[in-house]
Amino acid sequence: IACVGGEPRLLALHLKRLLEGCRRLALRPPQTAQLTAEIASLARGNERAVLKLLVTRGPAQARGYAASGEERGTRILLRYPWPNEDERVSQEGVRVRLGELRLGENPALAGLKTLNRLEQVLARFEWSTPAIAESLLFSSGGDLIGGTAANVFLVLGGQLHTPRLDRCGVAGVMREAVTLAARRAHIALAKRPLTSLDLDAAEEIFLTSALIGVRPVRELAGRTLPVGPVTRRLQHELGPLLRNEAQLPLGEGA
Amino acid sequence: IACVGGEPRLLALHLKRLLEGCRRLALRPPQTAQLTAEIASLARGNERAVLKLLVTRGPAQARGYAASGEERGTRILLRYPWPNEDERVSQEGVRVRLGELRLGENPALAGLKTLNRLEQVLARFEWSTPAIAESLLFSSGGDLIGGTAANVFLVLGGQLHTPRLDRCGVAGVMREAVTLAARRAHIALAKRPLTSLDLDAAEEIFLTSALIGVRPVRELAGRTLPVGPVTRRLQHELGPLLRNEAQLPLGEGA
Repeated sequence: IACVGGEPRLLALHLKRLLEGCRRLALRPPQTAQLTAEIASLARGNERAVLKLLVTRGPAQARGYAASGEERGTRILLRYPWPNEDERVSQEGVRVRLGELRLGENPALAGLKTLNRLEQVLARFEWSTPAIAESLLFSSGGDLIGGTAANVFLVLGGQLHTPRLDRCGVAGVMREAVTLAARRAHIALAKRPLTSLDLDAAEEIFLTSALIGVRPVRELAGRTLPVGPVTRRLQHELGPLLRNEAQLPLGEGA
Repeated sequence: IACVGGEPRLLALHLKRLLEGCRRLALRPPQTAQLTAEIASLARGNERAVLKLLVTRGPAQARGYAASGEERGTRILLRYPWPNEDERVSQEGVRVRLGELRLGENPALAGLKTLNRLEQVLARFEWSTPAIAESLLFSSGGDLIGGTAANVFLVLGGQLHTPRLDRCGVAGVMREAVTLAARRAHIALAKRPLTSLDLDAAEEIFLTSALIGVRPVRELAGRTLPVGPVTRRLQHELGPLLRNEAQLPLGEGA
């Protein structure tokens, strides 16, 4: 959870995703009022910071994978400094590579943000040069999924496309915010299966995450890409939200 | 790690798997001599107990999936009481169901015992009656893989078969011990892709794990199965090893 101006950003979307994750994993969700107060308390006074919230099923009463249903959940809320980085990259874009590791497909876990992230860890080990910001990863079936820690959007024929995440991948809150912003800006957005052919054909590519917002890709595996009009338009549209000067209209995050 | 008679059982196979897991996940492995001493110390004086060893990359120096390579690994060694259970089930066999959740396929993680076990947790939630001991799970591609916490062996035409675990699944140490025992007993063993058709055709089925040893399946999804001669022969062959009265011949676990 990015905190800007002492307040959590996109909190409604974070909480929505958390509740959805709890539902699908049969975790008892934390009480929203208490959690919101705790997040507000850790965010307060921090012009820019990162919060990380972990929710677990809690201590088990016995060994093994079964749960009794009587577990009392644990929540852990951590605050980190905002990452140091050159402010220009958010405007000028980043260099991205193609990952080699293929992501396993499981509809039962697709889209969820969980602590089972070994694939991302291994994918992140494929490169170490700081000049490369991210790897784009494909599923075992060959579909484009996203970065190790970001979602990806392509502009094809002036329209916006992002991978459907019903077999693997993490559905980030900024992906959701871009969906809402595209609707407001009357930019058509398709969530659908995408492949490396779509990457080759893309006029613009950008990455999204709760921290980086909308970040243009200026180079993909050696190919130079422009920071184009659709990317700029969405950055502009999301600006007030990212600066925490605007909230999502009530109901849109629900 | 099962402890029997105050000593860890199949320790050489556990350590071999740990080192292989560390290698594939680029974790610095713990020092074997120190680890062996710690395990011996926790096992000592316990007629029957279960040890659980967790090895992690250690505290990170920064957020994110990257590692600096300078992390100092953490190891956690836990001791639990031996699970309470009716001794007869190991002889008479258990009832098993077919799982609905399909396991994602990823060769990069296949065979490894890691803490990324959400699939097994969800698979274990599919049933709660204690009369059912285990679910047999299939991969997203339709291959039989194993139980939520056990490997599976089938007898087909008098020969032993167990799923190849090169796309998903956990390669348990007892699966390895059965491989060695089958070789000693001159029972042919094929590690190969298996499907539900092979399950239907199986003359005998048994489960294996570090704790349960070789456990016959007496009922699979309503179908009754005999505890047959191959299962009994392997139980007999493995008996001294499971009672910790014999060690694996040096080199066989390597």
